[in-house]
This record gives sequence, C-alpha cells and structure tokens, in this order.
Amino acid sequence: MADTLQADTATMNKIGIIGSGLIGKSWAMLFACSGYDVMLYDVISDQLQSALVDIEAQLSALYKEGLQRSSLTLAEVKGHICTTTILEECVTGAIYIQECVPENRDLKRDVWRQIDDVITPDDVVFATSTSAIVPSLLSDHLKKRHRFMVAHPANPPLLNPMVELVPAPWTEPAAVDRARALMEVIGQVPIVLNKEIDGFVQARIQAAIIHVAWQLVSEDYVDVESLETAMSEGLGGWYAFMGPFDVKHINANGFVDSNKKYGAMVEQVQKTFPKPELMQGPAAEKLTRDLEQWTPSNRLADRCRWRDRRMSALLQLKRKLDEEGKREEPK
Amino acid sequence: MADTLQADTATMNKIGIIGSGLIGKSWAMLFACSGYDVMLYDVISDQLQSALVDIEAQLSALYKEGLQRSSLTLAEVKGHICTTTILEECVTGAIYIQECVPENRDLKRDVWRQIDDVITPDDVVFATSTSAIVPSLLSDHLKKRHRFMVAHPANPPLLNPMVELVPAPWTEPAAVDRARALMEVIGQVPIVLNKEIDGFVQARIQAAIIHVAWQLVSEDYVDVESLETAMSEGLGGWYAFMGPFDVKHINANGFVDSNKKYGAMVEQVQKTFPKPELMQGPAAEKLTRDLEQWTPSNRLADRCRWRDRRMSALLQLKRKLDEEGKREEPK
Repeated sequence: MADTLQADTATMNKIGIIGSGLIGKSWAMLFACSGYDVMLYDVISDQLQSALVDIEAQLSALYKEGLQRSSLTLAEVKGHICTTTILEECVTGAIYIQECVPENRDLKRDVWRQIDDVITPDDVVFATSTSAIVPSLLSDHLKKRHRFMVAHPANPPLLNPMVELVPAPWTEPAAVDRARALMEVIGQVPIVLNKEIDGFVQARIQAAIIHVAWQLVSEDYVDVESLETAMSEGLGGWYAFMGPFDVKHINANGFVDSNKKYGAMVEQVQKTFPKPELMQGPAAEKLTRDLEQWTPSNRLADRCRWRDRRMSALLQLKRKLDEEGKREEPK
Repeated sequence: MADTLQADTATMNKIGIIGSGLIGKSWAMLFACSGYDVMLYDVISDQLQSALVDIEAQLSALYKEGLQRSSLTLAEVKGHICTTTILEECVTGAIYIQECVPENRDLKRDVWRQIDDVITPDDVVFATSTSAIVPSLLSDHLKKRHRFMVAHPANPPLLNPMVELVPAPWTEPAAVDRARALMEVIGQVPIVLNKEIDGFVQARIQAAIIHVAWQLVSEDYVDVESLETAMSEGLGGWYAFMGPFDVKHINANGFVDSNKKYGAMVEQVQKTFPKPELMQGPAAEKLTRDLEQWTPSNRLADRCRWRDRRMSALLQLKRKLDEEGKREEPK
C-alpha cells in the first residue's frame, strides 16, 4: 500500500501546510525529505522567510547527524519547499493538507472552512495538528468532513517519529488508510485511534503522569528533582524502548501472572489518586522556582538543544540496535 | 559525606542481603562491585549455588559491556560475595541489611522480627526491597524501627540506577542520609521521599499510566500495539532523559506559560479518567493474546535479553553524552 504512494511515482505530489510555526516547519521538512512538493502558508511574509532560514538550519543539523531519512541532497530538499501568503495557492490541488495554526478551536474551524472551499482531489486528506481538540469539534461544518482527521506528531517530529491519527465519527476509513500510508512513506510511525477521545493517547498518558506527579510534589512527598529523576534514571529506561503493558508482561511471568501478583496492588494505588485540579497556588510557585533553578526561562533554547542532542543520539542508537537485531534473527 | 563511606576506608564493611532472587542477586553485585563484603542469605543451599552461577554470568556480561562501575576485577568482585543459609550469620555485624524476600507482608514482618534480634551496629540501615508496601506496615513491631526504610530499586538494578528510599514515620533522618550516601557510593541514583505513600513514586507513575492505557485498550480506542508504540516511539524519547515537569517546562515558554496554555486542557482530560478497576474479563483476555503474539510466554527470557541489551546501550549513551556535556561546559 505505502509503496504506491512513493512520491516519484505519484501523479500528484503536492502537500499544503498551513502555519509556519514549530510544527508546520517540521511537517514541511518531513514531506520535502521524501520528495513531496510542499507549499507552506502563513499570513505574514516575514514569518515565512524566517521559517525558511530555520528550516535550513534544522536540515543542516539533521544531515550532519545522518538522520535525514532522505536520498536527496539538502539543496534538493530545500527545492521542494515553496511558501505563500495566499491560502488558496497553498491548498489547491494538494493531496494532503496539514493545518498547524495555534491551538484555538474557533481559529482552526475558520481556517478549515476556508480550505473546504478550495478545489482538491476527491481523496485529499484533511489533517489538523491539534494536541487535544477532538476532530468532530473542528470538522462538523465541512463539506469534506469525511476526509478530516487529527494527525498529531510527537515533539520534535523529526526526532520523535510517532504520529497519532484520530478520525471523527464521520471520517472514512479510506482517508485514515491514506494518511497512515503517507506517514509511513515519510518515515513517521503512525498509530491509529478507532474513535476520538479527549487527549487521544499521548496527552492522556502525559496527563495521567502529571496527575500523580503533581500530587507527589504539591503534597510534599518528594521534591521536583527527585520526581524527575524517578523518570529519567528509572522508568524512562524502559519507556525508551517499550510500552507499559509489555513492561508488565516481561517483569513477571507474562501479563496474567503480573495481574495475579500485582493487580490488586495497582488498583489500590489508583484508588489513592486525588481529584484532578489545576496546578496553582504556593505549590505551583515553588515548583516553578525549582524548575527555573534547573533551566532558567532565558535558557530554554539551550535546554531544547540539550534535549535534541539526546533524542537524536537515542534515535541513532535504536536504528543501530534494530539493525543488529535483524542480523541476529534473519527472517 | 559519601566519601567517608568508601569501602576501603570503612571500619566495618559487611552487607547482609536476605533472599537470593532477582533483586537479591542484583544488590549483591552492586555492593560487591564497590568492594563491600556481601553475605547473601537464602533458606535453601541449592538456590544459593544457582544464584552464584547466575551472578557470575551477569557480571561477565557487565564487564564485557564496560558497565561494571568497579575498579575491581571480576574475580575480586566474586571474592566479595559469600553465601549462608543461617540468617544470624548473614546479619550479625552488618552495616546495611537489604531484605529481598517475596512481596508478602506477613513473611517480610516475620523476617524482620528475626533480623531485629541479631547484633548490629547502632547506625545499621534496615532496608526492604518492596515495590509497594509502605514501611510503617513492615516495621512497627521492631526495636530498631528508627533505622528502617524501603530501598526499592528500578529493574534491572544494574542497568537502571534509580533507587527509591522511603522512610516510615519513625525513621531517623540520619538513617536515610546514611542509606543515600551508600547508594551513591555503589553508583545508584537515590531519590528520597519525605514520607510514605502507597506505591511510592515509581509504582504510582506506573499505575497512572496503566490506568489510562487500560481504558484506551479495553474500551477499544486503540489496539495494544498502538498504545505501546505511543510510548516507545513517542513519549519514551523524552522520558529516557527528562521527567514530566521538565518536559512541560521546555515544551512551552516555561512551566507558567505551559500551565496557562494547556492547564485547563490537562485538567479536562484528567476528568475523563475512569474509576480504577481490576484488569479482567474479555478485554484482558484479548490484551493477553495480543501481548503473547509479540512475546510468547516461553520466550520471555529472550525478550528480557532484548531489553537488557537496549538498556545497557542507553546507559552507555547517557554516560557518553554527559561526559561530552562536561567538556562543553567546564565548571
């Protein structure tokens, strides 16, 4: 399935990206690296110019690390990215449209209403990058709502390949299949939800972790440094390679045995979780001060580079280990 | 503080380990690698013999990977581990006692009652490896309960350095300080809770993730493979290096900005979490079948080796990156 979508054999090859912020730039690079013709839209011309400068810098870093997932040269990839301040020019004839405007329901609805009126192929994919708004709330008013879904990447998308695809109740399965195949062509790892739910998978897991983490810190069971260390020097060692059920499965004699040994304990612990609340008040102020000690707000960019260096090294490591695994277990 | 505990300068150097299962063996290796004299106890002599065989195999693998955290040779480390089937011999005069018997409250209480009667230094540390039983429930009956705490490692302890230290209400701060310093000497990364809570930090975070993961899978929002992939190809890329608050802090313009932008969304998602329940019924059976497809129960050991290969590579990678970081930012 995916092979038939290879860019060089596709009759139509145009990708429309709405919004040239962090996520919009990432989508532009991902598609351009696979030879798609990207048309990047934003309202302000200057914003597009600085986006292109940043794209070049990011691509250079990616090529330097050998993480470009592309047989094209850097110059060729750049040649696949055009910009426009005219929405219609961005969208007309595009086979896939990825909207990346700020996380505001009314703004997104309005942008999609405009996109909906432009001529696109019947099998176009309409995708929004929202991290938490369910797709039905963004697409009920669209003529082409059967082609609409959420395509929410992990951050940063070039170093963290997972993408959530979330259909609305009226989304055609064929639209999801097409989006999934496109994600695979550009080297992302799509996961498909069967139906929509607040927060999808990623933000639900994050919200669950924050829920207990906030209790532990705000009620003074641990300081924030210890809480963070429990993840980065403990649980994170698993999650870099495995999900939560697989961890349970192999930490006992299988999942059934794990449930038998620890099921009641896990339920008991869950029963001690508090009611959800906003993180505010003196505990939130203290937490902010402690986080600022680690990473002052004026050094967030340095910390992002620190993170990117590590995530790119992890990605390289995982590729190498998977290659080794293939050699050990020929199929 | 930690330096004064270096094994070669300590006047007393004996570590008592109760139980020679997976965790007991790991503690034995960790202490022996730092030159402590470990006395490993179990009720059955054959069990101790096979524990020694396995310890040798694990140490060999560790030395091969260069992950031994020790200036001693493999033979020297082995020379620091003795075994006994007499509890009193294991415990007498030990500066630190780590109990690793199965996760059963009555069993643990009984073992500790016996340990409590043996002569040990005044500043001994009494530590239990439980993953979820709060220390007050295991130590209220002990004469030396002021020296008692949980010391719960991540798994596998030699590749995943975090250790939770959890005091009971009656535990002296000096006992926790001593345990923390010892953990640092043997190269583990201790985190200290200020007071006890069900599941401590590790099992609470795991229970929180399983809580939402079970809902997503049992209510058919996603299949288990997608759920696992969301962690291993998405969120896990962060958690290998950072905790949940740091992630929020740098994914926005600091924690305050993150709260402002996403706080209400996070709370809304948390409000959709279901009541805790045991994982059972047809959904649990399907989940088991799906997990078995990945890793059949008769191949769990292979999967553990797969995991260990990856965790040891990640540990090496993190050391290398930290070294690079130190060169870049001399202090």
